[in-house]
Amino acid sequence: MRVYFTFDPRPDLKESLLKDFPDVDFVFHKRIDDEQLAKAEVLVTYGEDLDDRAIEIAEKLEWIFVASAGIEKMPAKAIAKRGIVVSNVRGIHKRPMAESILAHLLAIKRVLPFIYEQQRKKQWNQQTKLYELNGSVALILGPGAIGSEVGRMLQAFDVYTIGVNRSGKSAPFMNETHQLSDLKQLLPKAHIVISILPSTEETKYLLTYEDFKLMREDAIFMNFGRGDLVKTEDLIRALEEKQIFHAVLDVYEEEPLTEDSGLWELSNVTISPHISSRSSRYLERSFDIFKPSLRKWMNGDRDIENKMEILRGY
Amino acid sequence: MRVYFTFDPRPDLKESLLKDFPDVDFVFHKRIDDEQLAKAEVLVTYGEDLDDRAIEIAEKLEWIFVASAGIEKMPAKAIAKRGIVVSNVRGIHKRPMAESILAHLLAIKRVLPFIYEQQRKKQWNQQTKLYELNGSVALILGPGAIGSEVGRMLQAFDVYTIGVNRSGKSAPFMNETHQLSDLKQLLPKAHIVISILPSTEETKYLLTYEDFKLMREDAIFMNFGRGDLVKTEDLIRALEEKQIFHAVLDVYEEEPLTEDSGLWELSNVTISPHISSRSSRYLERSFDIFKPSLRKWMNGDRDIENKMEILRGY
Repeated sequence: MRVYFTFDPRPDLKESLLKDFPDVDFVFHKRIDDEQLAKAEVLVTYGEDLDDRAIEIAEKLEWIFVASAGIEKMPAKAIAKRGIVVSNVRGIHKRPMAESILAHLLAIKRVLPFIYEQQRKKQWNQQTKLYELNGSVALILGPGAIGSEVGRMLQAFDVYTIGVNRSGKSAPFMNETHQLSDLKQLLPKAHIVISILPSTEETKYLLTYEDFKLMREDAIFMNFGRGDLVKTEDLIRALEEKQIFHAVLDVYEEEPLTEDSGLWELSNVTISPHISSRSSRYLERSFDIFKPSLRKWMNGDRDIENKMEILRGY
Repeated sequence: MRVYFTFDPRPDLKESLLKDFPDVDFVFHKRIDDEQLAKAEVLVTYGEDLDDRAIEIAEKLEWIFVASAGIEKMPAKAIAKRGIVVSNVRGIHKRPMAESILAHLLAIKRVLPFIYEQQRKKQWNQQTKLYELNGSVALILGPGAIGSEVGRMLQAFDVYTIGVNRSGKSAPFMNETHQLSDLKQLLPKAHIVISILPSTEETKYLLTYEDFKLMREDAIFMNFGRGDLVKTEDLIRALEEKQIFHAVLDVYEEEPLTEDSGLWELSNVTISPHISSRSSRYLERSFDIFKPSLRKWMNGDRDIENKMEILRGY
């Protein structure tokens, strides 16, 4: 069996893979190579290097393992038509992502930006007010693997968690769960609104300027899902008018954020350059998911972890 | 009965006090007044305005309620000699303090200083490495009310907690608890060393340069107890030599930190100006402790909350 990696993993991880699967024919290439593609039965990719043509060439391909969570850049229809199994590393982001979200929330409440700024100026200045996270109400848009982990951590800080998903079916570590259609009734209740929603037809431009008007004036809005959840102009307008207290953004309509983006000019926003799911332990964890799946696959078991519904986008 | 406040609380809190205790004669003064002091049976203070002379004048004084946690500036011997009861707001700091400690830890792991700095420069820069808090081992020096709350939060992040106290008796939310005399054996194990120790004869200059040499090179040291835990020169030397990765300081040998302190020059330190226990909810919570104690006191019950052993310093 031939497994084709379109990236080159760390030597120690590669070695352990070769050692654990001596019967597999592994190929590691830093980019897509048509010749290799034509021979591969399994493809391991970050998910940004595939198109319709690649799927056509990859005539033996049966399984794509995506070493990331997002698949919006993948040629979904072509893959679905061929019946190629797609699985990803869903869940791998949950620890680092949730830690980043908590880091930003606690930093705002406990005035870390102020502390750093005074230190930069070499000034001893106690003239500030500190707040607490505990006792807040958080709305979590998309209480999936990451959202539930965020919920778990928030509950440890005595934050009341309200999940919002399509079905309204209860999700782990949510005190309540509601349907997306109830969003407008829920927004005014939350001190914190966190989106970890994927990009789908339903979530694109889901939030508008009007939604920010519905939020509390002291609300913190966090977008750690996908940048097209809200139009940048709507967000900027809401922040300029101080409809909410602060926004923490990790994703943007256009990335990288352009130099002339109005977001840079605002004082009530934190601009994180889409790095919040990153971790020094990322690749190890990808391999921890990939290896048991590969073992199953070799044994003819197609019930592998994190199988995706590619046409639905998750 | 006369209750003398040497500070002037927020109007709403004052009103609720007057309403709840119509039989008590309250006096609110922003500073110590000899005449009032001589008449007071109960004194409510932040604990920094008393000396031997004040205790002598306060001849009717039976109870001092200290609306802070530290009492090192109080004339302990004079108070003990008179048998005056001292109680404080121990526990009031635990929520805000623990949130600050977690904020700093998560900020370092999830590179918030880097994110803020890039934003200040209006630069989109992803060239950095992010780490995770989970999986760390934390040594908590002083697992009391605050330390245990820190332990609780750390455990929610899957951090293994080792408490260190005088007796070695197990403390809440510590996976292990050891005696202070075992410290040198424990220091090399910890990714995070947090002190919340009070200032006593035993803790003064407890940590020396040698202890920092025992710590891991990637260790984060946090002093949120008292500044005389370690000599500033020892700390600076250890940081200059990168014996540890980073220090987060909220307390200092001398406060405010002087302009010419070598600490300002270091890149591997976070200088928080002794504000980490602060909270916009502080005074409300002090009153939540004071009122039931005052009720008990009026009923002749001396078994009030947070009674202190003033000669021992805690």
